[in-house]
Amino acid sequence: MTRHFDHEQILNEDSFYRRNLINCLSGYKSLNLIGTQNADGLTNLAPFSQIFHVGANPPMVGILFRPHTVKRDTLENILETQFFTLNHVTPDFCRQAHWTSARWEGSEFEKTGLASVYLNEFPAPFVEQSPLKIGCQLVETQKLKVNQTVLLIGSIEHIFVEEKGLREDGSLDLNILDSVTVSGLDEYHKAEKIARFAYAKPNQDLTEI
Amino acid sequence: MTRHFDHEQILNEDSFYRRNLINCLSGYKSLNLIGTQNADGLTNLAPFSQIFHVGANPPMVGILFRPHTVKRDTLENILETQFFTLNHVTPDFCRQAHWTSARWEGSEFEKTGLASVYLNEFPAPFVEQSPLKIGCQLVETQKLKVNQTVLLIGSIEHIFVEEKGLREDGSLDLNILDSVTVSGLDEYHKAEKIARFAYAKPNQDLTEI
Repeated sequence: MTRHFDHEQILNEDSFYRRNLINCLSGYKSLNLIGTQNADGLTNLAPFSQIFHVGANPPMVGILFRPHTVKRDTLENILETQFFTLNHVTPDFCRQAHWTSARWEGSEFEKTGLASVYLNEFPAPFVEQSPLKIGCQLVETQKLKVNQTVLLIGSIEHIFVEEKGLREDGSLDLNILDSVTVSGLDEYHKAEKIARFAYAKPNQDLTEI
Repeated sequence: MTRHFDHEQILNEDSFYRRNLINCLSGYKSLNLIGTQNADGLTNLAPFSQIFHVGANPPMVGILFRPHTVKRDTLENILETQFFTLNHVTPDFCRQAHWTSARWEGSEFEKTGLASVYLNEFPAPFVEQSPLKIGCQLVETQKLKVNQTVLLIGSIEHIFVEEKGLREDGSLDLNILDSVTVSGLDEYHKAEKIARFAYAKPNQDLTEI
């Protein structure tokens, strides 16, 4: 059985139902904890599922922030200091990762028990437990015309990855790194490889690699 | 053991290695087949992993397209007709989904054996096998200043979802829908729930829902 919603039916649902539904539509999303600090050195940690690839040469990452109408510590810290870290989450600490989304006073590192670490004099805190840590510097921000969502572009300055997850061709084995994926606003999953396929060509059966 | 790359080391890797590495950094990504047709009715189908939530009210989705310097059928068809579909992929047809990325002459539906279907007179083709089909209309496009990547915003006009995956609160059970997630450019995974947590509050242990 298939359930159908048209645009008007979506708008007629209550806001809680609609938010759950629309946030699930894209499918499984990446999960990263973004580590920042303000000019006084107060650290902050928050979960983000809207981080994506913008380019490999030079290496850049994009992050979407909801409209900047309420206090957004992560965005404000990045605009103030220019630096932030991305940290993959594993099942071992996905509970704490979710808990960083609460409206804490003070640092989410201290409050949730996740350890911060500073590496190679990079001026933003990494999550010690994370198997993949990325240090980024602000390049620019730009507002979406449609609803004032902020798109932030960062340059990738450092990558720290557990060697067991780094393959010879540069790709990462996220199953081995044990990275978590998220759906909607609150649901965490682990993943298991089905297949990896070679570059696809017309009229030639795909080979697995 | 941890492997460290700084910005210069990343730039010094060969382009194949660098592309694999940087494309894996964000973590697991959603996978959707985008269905379109041109003004003559020739259909097109292509895999995208850069689709994200832009807003729930009104419901909107964003898609990042690499710089529009070579022929990009999907983007050109959307600009020409305004309409496109998003279709989740299951393990049953992730091989065909990958194969749609080859440089086919003619329609990827015909060439890869995926069936197209038209629903509620929506003027773009859906993938019949997909457990979650979304019909979207172009709202606007905007170029990223940094590298001419195109960000396209679409309005969500129709949702067709298998009822077994729709929960009472509007969220979707992607495990039951059997949606696939992707890492890097070529690796497909299924996912298994670890936990779903209630809205997080300071100083209160998280409850699972």
